Amino acid sequence: MDIRTHGLNNPTTVAEYLFTRLHQVGIRSVHGLPSDFNLVALDYLPKNMVAYAADSYAQTKGIGALLTTFGVGELSAINGVAGAYSEHIPVVHMVGCPSTISQRNGMLLHHTLGNGDFNAFANMSSQISCYVAKLNKPAEIADQIDHALHECWICSRPIYIMLPTDVVEKMVEGQRLKTPIDLSEPPSDPEREDYVVDVVLKYPHAAKNPVILVDACAVRHQVLNEVNELVEKTKLPVFVTPMGKGADLVLSIGALKSDFNTTGFSYRTSQLNTIDFHSTHCTVHYSEYPGFTMRGVLRKVADRVDRFKLSPMPMAKVQNELTRNCDSSSTIIQACFWTRISEYVKEGDIVVTETGTPSFGIWETKFPTGVTNVTQILWGSIGWSVGAAQGAALGAHDAGKDRRTILLVVDGSFQLTVQEVSTMVRMAWLEDYVVGCSSSTLFLRPNVTRADTFAVSLSTTTGFTIERCIHGMTAEYNDIARWKYTDIPAVFGGTDKQVKRIVIKTKEELEVLFRDKFFNDAEGLQFVELWMPKDDAPRALKLTAEIAARNNTKLE
Amino acid sequence: MDIRTHGLNNPTTVAEYLFTRLHQVGIRSVHGLPSDFNLVALDYLPKNMVAYAADSYAQTKGIGALLTTFGVGELSAINGVAGAYSEHIPVVHMVGCPSTISQRNGMLLHHTLGNGDFNAFANMSSQISCYVAKLNKPAEIADQIDHALHECWICSRPIYIMLPTDVVEKMVEGQRLKTPIDLSEPPSDPEREDYVVDVVLKYPHAAKNPVILVDACAVRHQVLNEVNELVEKTKLPVFVTPMGKGADLVLSIGALKSDFNTTGFSYRTSQLNTIDFHSTHCTVHYSEYPGFTMRGVLRKVADRVDRFKLSPMPMAKVQNELTRNCDSSSTIIQACFWTRISEYVKEGDIVVTETGTPSFGIWETKFPTGVTNVTQILWGSIGWSVGAAQGAALGAHDAGKDRRTILLVVDGSFQLTVQEVSTMVRMAWLEDYVVGCSSSTLFLRPNVTRADTFAVSLSTTTGFTIERCIHGMTAEYNDIARWKYTDIPAVFGGTDKQVKRIVIKTKEELEVLFRDKFFNDAEGLQFVELWMPKDDAPRALKLTAEIAARNNTKLE
Repeated sequence: MDIRTHGLNNPTTVAEYLFTRLHQVGIRSVHGLPSDFNLVALDYLPKNMVAYAADSYAQTKGIGALLTTFGVGELSAINGVAGAYSEHIPVVHMVGCPSTISQRNGMLLHHTLGNGDFNAFANMSSQISCYVAKLNKPAEIADQIDHALHECWICSRPIYIMLPTDVVEKMVEGQRLKTPIDLSEPPSDPEREDYVVDVVLKYPHAAKNPVILVDACAVRHQVLNEVNELVEKTKLPVFVTPMGKGADLVLSIGALKSDFNTTGFSYRTSQLNTIDFHSTHCTVHYSEYPGFTMRGVLRKVADRVDRFKLSPMPMAKVQNELTRNCDSSSTIIQACFWTRISEYVKEGDIVVTETGTPSFGIWETKFPTGVTNVTQILWGSIGWSVGAAQGAALGAHDAGKDRRTILLVVDGSFQLTVQEVSTMVRMAWLEDYVVGCSSSTLFLRPNVTRADTFAVSLSTTTGFTIERCIHGMTAEYNDIARWKYTDIPAVFGGTDKQVKRIVIKTKEELEVLFRDKFFNDAEGLQFVELWMPKDDAPRALKLTAEIAARNNTKLE
Repeated sequence: MDIRTHGLNNPTTVAEYLFTRLHQVGIRSVHGLPSDFNLVALDYLPKNMVAYAADSYAQTKGIGALLTTFGVGELSAINGVAGAYSEHIPVVHMVGCPSTISQRNGMLLHHTLGNGDFNAFANMSSQISCYVAKLNKPAEIADQIDHALHECWICSRPIYIMLPTDVVEKMVEGQRLKTPIDLSEPPSDPEREDYVVDVVLKYPHAAKNPVILVDACAVRHQVLNEVNELVEKTKLPVFVTPMGKGADLVLSIGALKSDFNTTGFSYRTSQLNTIDFHSTHCTVHYSEYPGFTMRGVLRKVADRVDRFKLSPMPMAKVQNELTRNCDSSSTIIQACFWTRISEYVKEGDIVVTETGTPSFGIWETKFPTGVTNVTQILWGSIGWSVGAAQGAALGAHDAGKDRRTILLVVDGSFQLTVQEVSTMVRMAWLEDYVVGCSSSTLFLRPNVTRADTFAVSLSTTTGFTIERCIHGMTAEYNDIARWKYTDIPAVFGGTDKQVKRIVIKTKEELEVLFRDKFFNDAEGLQFVELWMPKDDAPRALKLTAEIAARNNTKLE
């Protein structure tokens, strides 16, 4: 009798159980960096991914995973995970850690604090995770994994899983894997839900100019189907940024009213005219109604709203401001660039905008249908977008979609995570399994993907524009080194055939580029260095920066 | 009456007070990255540093400082700070954070978790700091700063200081700055100290072959003067790594007996023959004596030891193993390289060895007098050494010393922090104030420094050698991208005049290089790409990796 498998109908290793569950919730790639505390676990990834590659029909579920090592690895990634917490993104953070025996004996191991405390890093991560699971006892592990993934999905926030080296290959009951993991939301009390729906419905029926405002959490808690139904049925005007001025009722769905999301809290809508739908509660004016899900309430509101009682205003006609924003000089100014790219962006594109200039500039851009704009407005960690572009391209690939990924990043941010270009270059030329390594990420994935268009928006002299606008326009601490940007793909091993390198200094060159069929088709990585004046910034950034500067020094 | 300065004899801003205290403890450069929550504080740095530049006699005290921004900045740096905690390094981590008013109002600001919790990051850092100070109330701030720096110095570990934007320019009593900050160790109870000194002294007087073993904490808690006196007086054999085999008594000073510091716990010395001097306690065999300082006990032991009662063994003669380690082939193997560089390293050099191949390889190297080997054996965060080399060169410069800085790093680690080369390049060409920006560091410093010799040790095919040795010799997750390493300085803006680029593929080329006068003089940055076989590793690494692999999967 093998005591490792005794009593199990279908003995399965912990690693297989965990990675199978990840696959079942839609994860096809895992990011990470190898280290001895996660190497055995990594062995299980390629073979699982081989089996899964065949499953090209699986839906990518909008959930990510990373596998790091104890201490040094997880803390290197912790800023990214904190961003996911802040921004309501479901991420499974698995940490390969010292064996349960080493932990029990308090061994003085590398990657530890040297004080025998093996819980310090889990304590740190608990501040930015909605659930922490320490997989120590085989009998509990399958339950722990299922519950952790449920929490990750429902809260739409990171979870933290400690995976000791000696537990990776322990046996658990594999029979459970035949039952789909429960990702359902906790049931609402129907009476409570009906009550709040009745309260909510009084207002749109009574209002003269109601509008719907859709924000980040509607996407991140995945209630877009419900929102679409509500919009379709009511025909109410919809805004995706806080622009509901003039309305006497704002149905606000998934709002994250942070400073950078509202041009420094410059929204003019009163809470007295607002109904807020959040993931765990609803706020009608100043009354809070906790204890149910956004999805359930929205669905009932959509079902029960009487569209004949509504008085929707006509939608304001969206103006193309290109003529107003672009003067006759050759210099590419911010106001012109961000309106001009409206015509370059196509249906289905993924547009990744870095915190700072691009995340504010993109407000001026009009998107066609089906464009995904990936941002990190609230957390705002510079350098985030380069890795995010790679992840977005990989996600689209894993979902079997052929979409262009367009990254808009400024030099100051780009310098922080330039290694991700190495990953993009590497992914594009290997044909079977790929293990790409970069500043904080490594991934294992089947076949080839591509980060299609890669635009580096550069000042003629370089530095941190957003910081300049807030404080220190000419201060040396806002300067950065001058790099030879278009040489970067070659240094990382990319050939001219693999990577198209382009430098754009004038409006005329930009027009030629945007009309170029090859560039629009975006086969492979395209790297554009774009010259813009140093002291220029998008309108929304200038305004937000002024307010941030006042706020930082405001006295009582 | 100005209420901001009322009652203060010498009104001084919080920023000036803090930076003056940092200067008084020996800090001449501050690392960091600009962001709006620390911009006002940054304004105070250059002008202080201008004044301080004149003070070329001040001693650099072996204490460092970094200034980051709330959330995104501090969490990006937290792995480095955790390393300082693990390795007993005094680091002042200052975090520019939202104003006290924003905090009190729970504003939904960028760089926050969006939940109104402004203490989450301080809670995280408290796990890896010996003291946390939140500078909120002007009346308490001068005390808080002084106490925090005292703790940092005495515990030789990081402290965490939260600096709200609206506090930076609040007024505090500057008169205090005329009194030097108290950095004295807490007084020991003399009776207690005498007791343990008597206990300790019984053993060397009775032993036949006593030896002294000096380890990391003797350096980091700065008791080298006491150690030198003890060694000079007793003439006992001294070892700096755990090699005291055959001895019947080991006086172990500042030991950190971690796995990577002991070739996987392979020390053969018994605790029954060991007396351990630690920073806060002393262990004689298995008896613990807490409650006094290493310095006080060592000094009394040195004073009172009777050298005529000691029977020191003759020191083993150190063999030059070059002939044994280097075969006649042209290939540069690890065993040969690490013994060969013994003749290249000169008195006064700073040798920075990356975790992995270099930190193990360097065990085979014999140093002349006055060489500082900077390592991170316990924490072992890959990529650490590239920033560390820049910091070490800056520290030597700030101390007014003309020392070569030699970095030994392998490609896998180098790729993680390649941006630091940009900083090195940038520092070498600006002539007045320098603000260099890189992956996690920015520094403000007077005048020019240089990272003299910069050696990249490369495999012919690339990857994570230490991980290969532990697990997965041919696994794809241990592969990395092939970069064109010697093109990197140019991409970061370095000209051929500023940066010497060298590729070494054979033993003969290596000999020519080491005999080259220009290379030995090391004027400016020199970048060496060294080719070695992929599957080769230093002896100590192979042994340690075997033990780590066993340990990771050991069953009960």
